[in-house]
Amino acid sequence: MSGSALTAAPALPVRGRLRPLGITDVRITGGFWAERQSVNGEATLAHIEHWLEREGWLGNFDLAAQGVLDGARRGREFSDSEIYKFLEAMAWEIGRTGNARLEARFRAVVRRVAAAQEPDGYLNTNFGRPGQAPRWSDLAWGHELYCVGHLLQAAVARARTRPGADDGLLDVARRAADNVCATFGPDGIDGLCGHPGIEAALVEFARATGDDRYLAQAALFVDRRGHGRLGDVEFGREYFQDDRPVRQATVLRGHAVRANYLAAGAVDVAVELKDAGLLEAVRDQWQNTVARRTYVTGGQGSRHQDEAFGEDWVLPPDRAYSETCAGVGSVLLAWRLLLVDGDPRYADLIERTLFNVVATSPAVDGRSFFYTNTLHRRELGTRPDTDRPSLRAASSLRAPWFEVSCCPTNVARTMAGLAAYVATSDDDGLQLHQYVPGEVAHRLPDGRAVSVSVETGYPHDGQIRVRIDSDDDRPWSLSLRVPGWATTGATVTVDGETRPVGSGVITEHRTWRRGDEVVLSLPVAPRFTYPDARVDAVRGCVAVERGPLVLALESVDVPGGDTVGDLRVDTDRPPSLADGRVTLRCRRVRSHDHDWPYRAEPVPVTGEVLDDVALVEYHAWANRGPSTMRVWLPVAAPDPADRG
Amino acid sequence: MSGSALTAAPALPVRGRLRPLGITDVRITGGFWAERQSVNGEATLAHIEHWLEREGWLGNFDLAAQGVLDGARRGREFSDSEIYKFLEAMAWEIGRTGNARLEARFRAVVRRVAAAQEPDGYLNTNFGRPGQAPRWSDLAWGHELYCVGHLLQAAVARARTRPGADDGLLDVARRAADNVCATFGPDGIDGLCGHPGIEAALVEFARATGDDRYLAQAALFVDRRGHGRLGDVEFGREYFQDDRPVRQATVLRGHAVRANYLAAGAVDVAVELKDAGLLEAVRDQWQNTVARRTYVTGGQGSRHQDEAFGEDWVLPPDRAYSETCAGVGSVLLAWRLLLVDGDPRYADLIERTLFNVVATSPAVDGRSFFYTNTLHRRELGTRPDTDRPSLRAASSLRAPWFEVSCCPTNVARTMAGLAAYVATSDDDGLQLHQYVPGEVAHRLPDGRAVSVSVETGYPHDGQIRVRIDSDDDRPWSLSLRVPGWATTGATVTVDGETRPVGSGVITEHRTWRRGDEVVLSLPVAPRFTYPDARVDAVRGCVAVERGPLVLALESVDVPGGDTVGDLRVDTDRPPSLADGRVTLRCRRVRSHDHDWPYRAEPVPVTGEVLDDVALVEYHAWANRGPSTMRVWLPVAAPDPADRG
Repeated sequence: MSGSALTAAPALPVRGRLRPLGITDVRITGGFWAERQSVNGEATLAHIEHWLEREGWLGNFDLAAQGVLDGARRGREFSDSEIYKFLEAMAWEIGRTGNARLEARFRAVVRRVAAAQEPDGYLNTNFGRPGQAPRWSDLAWGHELYCVGHLLQAAVARARTRPGADDGLLDVARRAADNVCATFGPDGIDGLCGHPGIEAALVEFARATGDDRYLAQAALFVDRRGHGRLGDVEFGREYFQDDRPVRQATVLRGHAVRANYLAAGAVDVAVELKDAGLLEAVRDQWQNTVARRTYVTGGQGSRHQDEAFGEDWVLPPDRAYSETCAGVGSVLLAWRLLLVDGDPRYADLIERTLFNVVATSPAVDGRSFFYTNTLHRRELGTRPDTDRPSLRAASSLRAPWFEVSCCPTNVARTMAGLAAYVATSDDDGLQLHQYVPGEVAHRLPDGRAVSVSVETGYPHDGQIRVRIDSDDDRPWSLSLRVPGWATTGATVTVDGETRPVGSGVITEHRTWRRGDEVVLSLPVAPRFTYPDARVDAVRGCVAVERGPLVLALESVDVPGGDTVGDLRVDTDRPPSLADGRVTLRCRRVRSHDHDWPYRAEPVPVTGEVLDDVALVEYHAWANRGPSTMRVWLPVAAPDPADRG
Repeated sequence: MSGSALTAAPALPVRGRLRPLGITDVRITGGFWAERQSVNGEATLAHIEHWLEREGWLGNFDLAAQGVLDGARRGREFSDSEIYKFLEAMAWEIGRTGNARLEARFRAVVRRVAAAQEPDGYLNTNFGRPGQAPRWSDLAWGHELYCVGHLLQAAVARARTRPGADDGLLDVARRAADNVCATFGPDGIDGLCGHPGIEAALVEFARATGDDRYLAQAALFVDRRGHGRLGDVEFGREYFQDDRPVRQATVLRGHAVRANYLAAGAVDVAVELKDAGLLEAVRDQWQNTVARRTYVTGGQGSRHQDEAFGEDWVLPPDRAYSETCAGVGSVLLAWRLLLVDGDPRYADLIERTLFNVVATSPAVDGRSFFYTNTLHRRELGTRPDTDRPSLRAASSLRAPWFEVSCCPTNVARTMAGLAAYVATSDDDGLQLHQYVPGEVAHRLPDGRAVSVSVETGYPHDGQIRVRIDSDDDRPWSLSLRVPGWATTGATVTVDGETRPVGSGVITEHRTWRRGDEVVLSLPVAPRFTYPDARVDAVRGCVAVERGPLVLALESVDVPGGDTVGDLRVDTDRPPSLADGRVTLRCRRVRSHDHDWPYRAEPVPVTGEVLDDVALVEYHAWANRGPSTMRVWLPVAAPDPADRG
């Protein structure tokens, strides 16, 4: 179905520098992400359904349909959204695999959702019934519009992967969206949702249905935010991004998921309405956020209290919040900006966030998840209860489910639709942004079918071999991203000729023949990474990275110790790589307790040298039982004895 | 009234190494604390009364008495406790000054409180009336027992400063305490309060009334904690210290105010019941907490989310919570341990906490307060609303009142009763723990009247001149604390002879004559202080201290900048002191923004040298308008050019 007018992708802007390719244009056939997609499809989706049933969040719809929900509803006020994200995940997975059993499950869930919809299109199990708060009575915290947003996203995913399917989801979504427009339109309630999300969803729904009323409603929601309509809360108005209008803000702030979802929706509105000012504002916010408020993992959100960004440079590894869903939101935002501008920095952040946040959340078996993704764990975690939902931010081991369980479904929908973030096209050819073994096939606007296949062991192997699978007499362009971290050492080989390339985009404009090859070689030797001096919390530390992967020191790899706190890295020896293991030379120091931990003299730290301390890929930590871990490693001071 | 059987002090254990002297035994006549006591008495008490009236928290008692409170109650569930802390503060202030106008205000408030008490002694404006939750129905969050605790403390303060007064407060307290014992005794509700506090109060009430039922009830409450009776909450059971029994815990944890209040009550119970195991457990908890979980200011509590301690070594200066009330609680705990053991480390922490937490909270005019006491402020604060209560943890400028306004009344009662933490006695003589200009007079158990007066400009001047004001033919001991920070350079001069002394307690046992002098000379030159290497958040930084005072760099003192983030301290030059100003040599570095703040090479920082950057005493920061501030200052790396 390559080149079809209907692209199976979550975001389809009508204009922008690049056009997305969908999951039917791009196939991931092996490697790091294919493994995870497979686990997601085979284990995670069933795991999610199991918990949605057992916690009664799906059952809420049945009780609502039977008119007996009153008093029996289970779950938090936003639990409906998990069903919709589950539907979205299944829609992508069905589109990806054609799994018939999943198709049946999908339809069964849609039926139960549809049965709970009210005659006027309103659909939410938490409001409006006898014994419940009235509809729209708690916009700040009720998440009603947020839930509708996820319903629309599910319907969009389905419409783009199974156009014309007779499951009824698109109708349910349309009636819910119409109800929102009727209720919150220019003459309706002058309100907005405490949790952004519906903005991007409404724009996408407008794109999917061709009905601009939804776009207009999204624009209205974007414009309403930032004027204090949501009231004052202990966390401050910035929690909801209601402290200042989107077009006046200069950085993402407040609740990190909300901030990213809102900014993504604002880009959508700006693109469709050619609102250059709004777009420029978000671009600026993104740039400042990435430069000053983002963890080395790509994670965003420093604070537990309000799941929020800190001020500039406040990036403590301790209890870093770095919510999985904020990572998903950051991918959504960066992808939209990439489509608009084509700037590879957006794809750089997507890559970093996918490998180090989104891939970190699920356990290897796809049946437990991190909600937060701390960069420093000081005490051994306790094994979570497998029989009941965990508290969301225990930052301990991965848990099967949470009382607030937004992350598992967000991971599932992202994993299932991941191919949609790999490549784009423009009038002149194809652009590869992420490197996965697979195939990309597309019909250019002038009707030419172009296709390539990619062979690579990336991210562990830096060689990316792109083979042209189509023949064409006219030239077209193939563009490859050289990641921002590949500052030196990258080369590209075309037609037998190798040349060095720097970070950015390289474009080869040629008359390509089937069998032609472009080989991009990226320097994936492990390397030290130093923080900006303004990140106070990691002064005197280094991180170790390998390609796009952040590495970590985990106590299970340290001989004889549950703690990772007493190792100091010898930066005179670069990290070494042998047999797939990255190791460091460290010095183990022992501190001694005093009555009072502040002294008149710095205490020199010396100790035994450990020659080969192994690191773990950050996404894979905490898969071997309780452990302590740190990403930022203190640098050993030069040994006074070495000074001569 | 020196040497009277009735000591006007908040804690009067029947045994222990040292016996407290009360506010009638110790008079503070000038200097740092006298100024603050004067502001407290003249401005803060009236300010508090004004806000208690305007917010309706006092009015709640009137409405309750009139039977019309239903639905009209204002304030949070614990607001009654502010009235009781206000009464306690007034009681100490009346005891200190004999202020007749204050006496009338005190009696007026007591009358309003008494009128709201119910026939069976129950007293709380938030529970038990039609339309309110039933009494004792929310022990975890309701604060009913906590409020009774503060009522008892107020009554104890009054009974010890105006014994036999006919105001009725003692009776109100007794009836409330009896109601608690009847309700929560061995045959009553097997429960405890989510916020500790009543434990210490009941013990003190037992001491004040001679009725051991209250002691038994306190012991019961201490023993009931730590078994999960309060249920699970998102913050974890340690929030309430309900995760493990007091006698099994090894460190303070969870909510920092609760942790300190509980530990103080446990010491009281242990002392009265000769429970060596319980005492040893708290002693151990204190030691570990001070060694690993306490800020250089003495502040405790790292986290905003749950106002809680972090794990060991988690002491981020950014958004350090360091709640004022946790500082007060820490003083209460350390004082009790000092009385038991006589170990000067307890008095060291009290001194540090008084100067750098308790003195930091109130503004110079005594009419606004810090609730939290951060060690690093990155962005200019906004001036708080003077017309309505502020959010408690804005960490911005001091605010006149808070929605949760525990700190102003806690500061007020501590300031008014401060003289009770200065000196103690034992069978052999007097011990001075804190140095204030003033007079100490006491009758030893054998009937001898001993008295001394102190002249000092401490903490800015290190000379403390203690003059004997009594004559006696038999020898007695005068003990002076040499603070832990005075590791070198302290001397004592007795009888014209000067000798060096180290940190600890020096005791002079002599036959003292009126006019004899002991001069302690402490090294109060400003000094650098280095953190334990395990405090990751301040690696590579120094603090500057001067005597017991922590200093800070505040942007209003930095030429041409709102930020304190770009200064690096040259530690080759010690801090200098001239004309009362402490200055540092710094290098101003300029960082440049990049797209991404993590780099393959450390960025060397160089820049102009600023020779005399002035510091401010931490307690005095934020008194000159919005500013940024930091206590921990990054050390300048050696300039590569200097290496030769």
